[in-house]
Amino acid sequence: MTDRQPFDDIRALLPLMPQASEKHVSAVRARDAQLTKPAGALGRLETIVEHMAAWQAKEKPTADRAHTVVFAGNHGVAARGVSPYPTSVTRAMLQNFSSGGAAVNQICGAFGLGLKVFELALDLPTKDITQEPAMSEAECAATIAFGMEAIAGGADLLCLGEMGIANTTVAAAIYHALYGGAPEHWVGRGTGVDDVGLTRKIAAVRDAVALHKGECRDPLDVLRRLGGREIAALAGAILAARMERVPVILDGYVVCAAAAILHALDPAATAHCLAGHLSAEGAHADVLARMGLTPLLSLGMRLGEGSGAALAAGVVKAALACHADMATFAEAGVAGKDA
Amino acid sequence: MTDRQPFDDIRALLPLMPQASEKHVSAVRARDAQLTKPAGALGRLETIVEHMAAWQAKEKPTADRAHTVVFAGNHGVAARGVSPYPTSVTRAMLQNFSSGGAAVNQICGAFGLGLKVFELALDLPTKDITQEPAMSEAECAATIAFGMEAIAGGADLLCLGEMGIANTTVAAAIYHALYGGAPEHWVGRGTGVDDVGLTRKIAAVRDAVALHKGECRDPLDVLRRLGGREIAALAGAILAARMERVPVILDGYVVCAAAAILHALDPAATAHCLAGHLSAEGAHADVLARMGLTPLLSLGMRLGEGSGAALAAGVVKAALACHADMATFAEAGVAGKDA
Repeated sequence: MTDRQPFDDIRALLPLMPQASEKHVSAVRARDAQLTKPAGALGRLETIVEHMAAWQAKEKPTADRAHTVVFAGNHGVAARGVSPYPTSVTRAMLQNFSSGGAAVNQICGAFGLGLKVFELALDLPTKDITQEPAMSEAECAATIAFGMEAIAGGADLLCLGEMGIANTTVAAAIYHALYGGAPEHWVGRGTGVDDVGLTRKIAAVRDAVALHKGECRDPLDVLRRLGGREIAALAGAILAARMERVPVILDGYVVCAAAAILHALDPAATAHCLAGHLSAEGAHADVLARMGLTPLLSLGMRLGEGSGAALAAGVVKAALACHADMATFAEAGVAGKDA
Repeated sequence: MTDRQPFDDIRALLPLMPQASEKHVSAVRARDAQLTKPAGALGRLETIVEHMAAWQAKEKPTADRAHTVVFAGNHGVAARGVSPYPTSVTRAMLQNFSSGGAAVNQICGAFGLGLKVFELALDLPTKDITQEPAMSEAECAATIAFGMEAIAGGADLLCLGEMGIANTTVAAAIYHALYGGAPEHWVGRGTGVDDVGLTRKIAAVRDAVALHKGECRDPLDVLRRLGGREIAALAGAILAARMERVPVILDGYVVCAAAAILHALDPAATAHCLAGHLSAEGAHADVLARMGLTPLLSLGMRLGEGSGAALAAGVVKAALACHADMATFAEAGVAGKDA
């Protein structure tokens, strides 16, 4: 009998993932055909409602208990000079979230979204991935499990965000390990690194992937060797939401690294995810295309914090309101097509 | 001494248009540089705030008195079989707006926008543009003036929408007259016309423009000969907002025909306009490019009613909230770049 390994509990969930509810998608389409508008005229707003119905298994899907969850971690690779900001900014920004001063606070406020922030051992950064694995398997598995708390207390829509100086470097390393190609393809300027810093960042990604690639048997090994705590927790949050039928809005370049790990494990694991926006960072468009996702917004944002996901939640709330509360042709006494 | 013509009062406004306030744009940029985020990381949200500041002439621009105005008209060209819906739908949809049952009601509700609907002599459709001018000059000028009521009572952001069976045909005729090219380039399926109807629609646009082109000395002639009442009123609303420094969010294919008339008169006349979204209809992308506008949203919508403009207003409100209420680096005690 073999020992049970920490990742086995994660892998064991994959065969248990529920299916999309085609019955509820059909009910949405039947109602949509009766609403006072030409068929298809609300475009993506209509398919958003179908997506929400499929995963919530509701005829009239809701976003009444929508919230944004931000996970924050620190990264040993920051010592490689890959960010223009000191790692102390991670904690300072958490305090800024708490006191309501960050961008994501304002966006959540504008759309009536809750906001929860989870701090992940900021004083114990993960190891420098150019030198050794970021985390042990036990530590990574525990962080994934902790991330599952994102939906504790109930949610009908989960927007995911992150904070962590140097985490675009970590995300780029994950993409390079998962998808191959050249490291410079995956590396962008993050918070705004200069040319010298960008060269260091590319070197860090190249070195880290070269060091660990041979030891990565599956995507969870990529996560624990090249990832960070917030990315592991995000993977847990996405997976928990998948199990509990909570639709997810992904934020940008870093959050999608967590989704990419799960998608590589099993493409069905991210079927409940919408891409909130196309980031201005690096190769985000390529990442989304590999996961089959079309972003809801494309506004040149590259802030993280869940800001793009929360902004997209406004669109989702409007889409759900149209479906739930528009009158039908019969109710409004409006003649239909070719009447 | 020559007689004063009805359009002269409209033309007389153009030299009086106020300038963008560069002073307030500078103030926005100075504050933006202090906010707790990397420079430029909110992308388009930052330039939205600058746009609002430039036209409102406020350091902290607002959208507290934002509303959507929908103008509705009927069109003689509907008799050419260019729409799958009967013209009775225009009035029925107005009743639907009044009772809160349309898409635009839900979107306005989601973002706290007011909604006003103006009916423009629905029982007296404009003339069939394939046979004669849609309106007399006096009638067109009076309708433009009526449209200026859109900002009566005060507004700090104006979202514009329209309703009118056959008005995508009218909009296509305006574009074809203003921009040339082939009629089929400008004609889309509107509410969902079939292939036979599309052929009729292209023929109507071709015939109308051929009939009137020689008589159009300037864009206001295009408006009165090929336009409709809601498009004339929209032109008035855009111009009044321009004079009173009220930023405007344009909706899709039909609303942009009113903007295109003004832009052709004087490109500065639409400088206060944001494009709310890229419509799925016909050559809307071409129209926006000709006016130098980049749409905020691209969600495959083609409903009209101001639905795309109102949806984009959610993004604008979130952008303004970020600028107004985010903490500065100093306030939050967050270290800046390269600290």
